[in-house]
Amino acid sequence: MPENTPFAPPGAAVDLEEGTAFTPKFGADGLVACVATDARSGDVLMVAHMNAEALAKTIVSGEAWYFSRSRKALWKKGEASGHTQRVVEMRVDCDQDTVWIKVEQIAGACHTGRRSCFYRAVPLGGEGAVTLEFRDDRVFDPAKVYRDRS
Amino acid sequence: MPENTPFAPPGAAVDLEEGTAFTPKFGADGLVACVATDARSGDVLMVAHMNAEALAKTIVSGEAWYFSRSRKALWKKGEASGHTQRVVEMRVDCDQDTVWIKVEQIAGACHTGRRSCFYRAVPLGGEGAVTLEFRDDRVFDPAKVYRDRS
Repeated sequence: MPENTPFAPPGAAVDLEEGTAFTPKFGADGLVACVATDARSGDVLMVAHMNAEALAKTIVSGEAWYFSRSRKALWKKGEASGHTQRVVEMRVDCDQDTVWIKVEQIAGACHTGRRSCFYRAVPLGGEGAVTLEFRDDRVFDPAKVYRDRS
Repeated sequence: MPENTPFAPPGAAVDLEEGTAFTPKFGADGLVACVATDARSGDVLMVAHMNAEALAKTIVSGEAWYFSRSRKALWKKGEASGHTQRVVEMRVDCDQDTVWIKVEQIAGACHTGRRSCFYRAVPLGGEGAVTLEFRDDRVFDPAKVYRDRS
């Protein structure tokens, strides 16, 4: 059980699916997945993870907080870049192990400088090696926004 | 390395992020996450996982295939219900560990009978216990569609 959680533990499948109690089902790593979409365009901006503390902070503040699996640290989206996400709506899925937030994204969500992390298309219909197609240009210069970033 | 993979192994971060080679970064469990959105409404329908075989089948066929973590089995979306997903577009994210597919969903994506798995909202601003709000009605009767389902 993660620390600092205001959430009750998940119950049986019928309670998770048809109940009104929010009992997020954190994985063995203490995380739920979170999909952030652009509240205006509907585009998927990013997929990241939240521990109980990040999820609680997001609910209370209405700003997106995540938990970095690589850095093993809580982070507020935009704390380094200023590119915060104001949460317009939060949804949870049937088995309560994934949340979806519709957000107002400042500038871009992706550390590469694009609006969305999903800036390349995977062509369909082919077998074997696949060549990605770039679809989105940068909306900011990551070298200027992130200092000391490797 | 998963079996039956037509994908080259992932390279350095710069290649993953700025290259045109599709080299999906499967996790230790051999899976990538996949977000499926409704190509018409933009709503998130479901989040599931694909192993290399499911991903390759999806690309070749243009129909969504997944890998069930609970059943440890490849499955074609809609194989039991008929509620298939025709993929209109596939995107991959910056570090190539998540794909986003825009789909034409027959009937509903959720096994509970709703169009989307995200049929409940999590109210924002509160601290402590959270009461979910149902937002979407059923579009099909799961008892009729799924037989022998526990």
